[in-house]
Amino acid sequence: MEITRTLARFVVEHKSLDVPQPVRHEAARSFLNWVGCAVGASRHETVECALAALAEFSGPAEATVLGRRERLDIMQAALMNGITSHTFDFDDTHLKTVIHPSGPVASAILALGERQRVSGEAFLHAFILGVEVECRIGNSVYPQHYDVGWHITGTAGVFGAAAAAGKLLGLNEQQMVWALGVAATQSSGLREMFGTMCKPFHPGNAARNGLLAALLAQQNFTSSNQGIEAKRGFAHVLSTAFKPEEITERLGETWEISLNTYKPFACGIVIHPIIDACIQLRNEHGLNAEDIESIEAKVHPLVLELTGKKTPRVGLEGKFSVYHSAAVAIIHGAGGEAEYSDQCVSDPRVTALRDRVTAVVENGMHEDQTRVAIKLKNGKTVEKFVEHAIGSLARPMSDADLERKFRGLTKGILSDAECDRLITLCWEIGTLKDAGEVARASMPGR
Amino acid sequence: MEITRTLARFVVEHKSLDVPQPVRHEAARSFLNWVGCAVGASRHETVECALAALAEFSGPAEATVLGRRERLDIMQAALMNGITSHTFDFDDTHLKTVIHPSGPVASAILALGERQRVSGEAFLHAFILGVEVECRIGNSVYPQHYDVGWHITGTAGVFGAAAAAGKLLGLNEQQMVWALGVAATQSSGLREMFGTMCKPFHPGNAARNGLLAALLAQQNFTSSNQGIEAKRGFAHVLSTAFKPEEITERLGETWEISLNTYKPFACGIVIHPIIDACIQLRNEHGLNAEDIESIEAKVHPLVLELTGKKTPRVGLEGKFSVYHSAAVAIIHGAGGEAEYSDQCVSDPRVTALRDRVTAVVENGMHEDQTRVAIKLKNGKTVEKFVEHAIGSLARPMSDADLERKFRGLTKGILSDAECDRLITLCWEIGTLKDAGEVARASMPGR
Repeated sequence: MEITRTLARFVVEHKSLDVPQPVRHEAARSFLNWVGCAVGASRHETVECALAALAEFSGPAEATVLGRRERLDIMQAALMNGITSHTFDFDDTHLKTVIHPSGPVASAILALGERQRVSGEAFLHAFILGVEVECRIGNSVYPQHYDVGWHITGTAGVFGAAAAAGKLLGLNEQQMVWALGVAATQSSGLREMFGTMCKPFHPGNAARNGLLAALLAQQNFTSSNQGIEAKRGFAHVLSTAFKPEEITERLGETWEISLNTYKPFACGIVIHPIIDACIQLRNEHGLNAEDIESIEAKVHPLVLELTGKKTPRVGLEGKFSVYHSAAVAIIHGAGGEAEYSDQCVSDPRVTALRDRVTAVVENGMHEDQTRVAIKLKNGKTVEKFVEHAIGSLARPMSDADLERKFRGLTKGILSDAECDRLITLCWEIGTLKDAGEVARASMPGR
Repeated sequence: MEITRTLARFVVEHKSLDVPQPVRHEAARSFLNWVGCAVGASRHETVECALAALAEFSGPAEATVLGRRERLDIMQAALMNGITSHTFDFDDTHLKTVIHPSGPVASAILALGERQRVSGEAFLHAFILGVEVECRIGNSVYPQHYDVGWHITGTAGVFGAAAAAGKLLGLNEQQMVWALGVAATQSSGLREMFGTMCKPFHPGNAARNGLLAALLAQQNFTSSNQGIEAKRGFAHVLSTAFKPEEITERLGETWEISLNTYKPFACGIVIHPIIDACIQLRNEHGLNAEDIESIEAKVHPLVLELTGKKTPRVGLEGKFSVYHSAAVAIIHGAGGEAEYSDQCVSDPRVTALRDRVTAVVENGMHEDQTRVAIKLKNGKTVEKFVEHAIGSLARPMSDADLERKFRGLTKGILSDAECDRLITLCWEIGTLKDAGEVARASMPGR
């Protein structure tokens, strides 16, 4: 069976009308959340560095850096929006694979949509298909691929960006096969980079390179016809296991974007159950940091593997510290961007409590579970078992929750009126005459 | 031991005066050969496709596409020159790793050298250091990394491009560490793409991305400090074995570019001994294709693995066919670009002889050896054992051979006077006031 070709044919032939309404709505939720994250981080040092390095090399200024006044060429804009949307680690998560699906795909096609007028319907359709490609490829190699050390949002994301951009460029089947091949041969991004500016660089780079793949394929730039499944193709070279049926079975019947989730907390998803449990205990028992002797969390092994930083020095490192996260959950009752600022990470009250947090792997615990026990100085112990964290598929954020998160993220960047208008445009993305309107509406003081 | 930092420090601190003269001369040989290859393929369909796709997105037109009249932004020019220089598969080879060292490194820094005036001495020094970084990283993971399925010219090349560009940008040690990290997290390129336009895309993309890494690092865009050696860094994720001492031992005492070789034939290096043997037999015995019953070559396993295409349909596929290569060696006494044209691949005289060629793996044979036996229709058999192919380290092409090759490659693109001037500039690269002069001199009809 030709895996790459089957997937390419599906993307080329699929009709927008065949996407069920709930899938469209989930895509709009994903898109809204993505725009909020991108605007929210649009003044972050990470994107400032990238702009300082690259903007002077920009080609025609056809696409917007969300939340800013700069316009850049479409590949640079795709890179920048991919970076900003993942900078806070606050974007959407496909829990089956820990892919952050929107970043690579939306960044690529929103930029493209500003260059060539694209209807909201075509845009949303391409977005859904791109996410489908990216997550199915992720499913086919997860978890072994991730275990090897690949940052799957980058490695799988480049395929999603290529497929979505290719759909909007009107590639034929063979060109789409080539686009996926050019994507395969650019697939990259190491988990070693977590905690540095390179982590958000990965979805940005996937967007930039996926767009490049689609543009090259449009001009009949050739690649292997089996970029995904060949003996020396993506799956076998970048993973120790491959389930091709995850890519091809029930194509067009199931939709991976329906499995998308949104984070209430601005850090790696594996810490969310612990923050959730701590906030619940704090609120239920009116806890103060000073009353606490120790906090112990029983966790899935990934928690320590990904977020085991004992003594984070800067905000970004705080996101990779389960210890810091538990401390701020108790002290501030939250886990937003403010709780991952440089200032908060070195706040003596936080560091004092952080040092009293332990996390212990418990066999059989799944990734969304935790059991947190807080021992108080008065000798009492309070406990909370979380089966599914808030923001998970089982306990999803509501549309209103997402709007609230969006407002929090864009505060100080957009006026209330600009924010209202942008939220409305995101919800209406599927019916806009021109999808690029969203990008332009994100520009403050326009 | 901090591998990435040790390498970064070496590149940052090394002084041009400490490069021995023979190393400089070998670098000039590499550069000359690289320029010839790039100019030679500057009208090829591969680069035409890439230009059609991307030129309209170019930023400031500060750098030359070698052999053409177009100027593009430095990242696009780096991409295009990396593509053209490897399109004919005729560029230099570091035989220890099968890396083609010049493409990623020279493409990145020649473009940069057109933007910011760089002396020939600084250019040649950065080139030598970039090749050193790329080949040492290659040495540290070869052959396992290559066996996994990675196209090492792409995967190691991005480090060389980043290091060389970073040297010219004047990065400090920490910035150079970051540049190597941003390179690590972009390292990519699959051997599955051999025989398609993506193969020459790899060194071009390595040049583009290495340049990006250096530019980002210059603005303090952070990455891991152990991009190469960390548990989830380049070496462990992209290879099954890692010899860190290959990166750090005798730095500045030995020079990998001294081990560089140049191809007399326009195809994969593993076929060269067979072509060499066939041409020798042809010339010694005055052979005609029609007199030949069969040709049998005893070969190293890589020959069949890389060049086992029985029935190539187009010129590019001919380069991956030991059968076609042996046939043209007999018929035309050569293995230049003309012998890998679409026309030659489907020439009935060639295909008839090709079908009578067999290649058989012989245990214990090294990659540069072959034993070719030609059985004639008159019952006689003639044989040739090749210990080292022409163009190998043991039988290198002379400076005059390289000039002849250069003239052959650039014929029809540059006038004789233009060609003479460009050859002179390449030989004098180390003393030019402005290295960018080479790029501008490659522009025909200037």
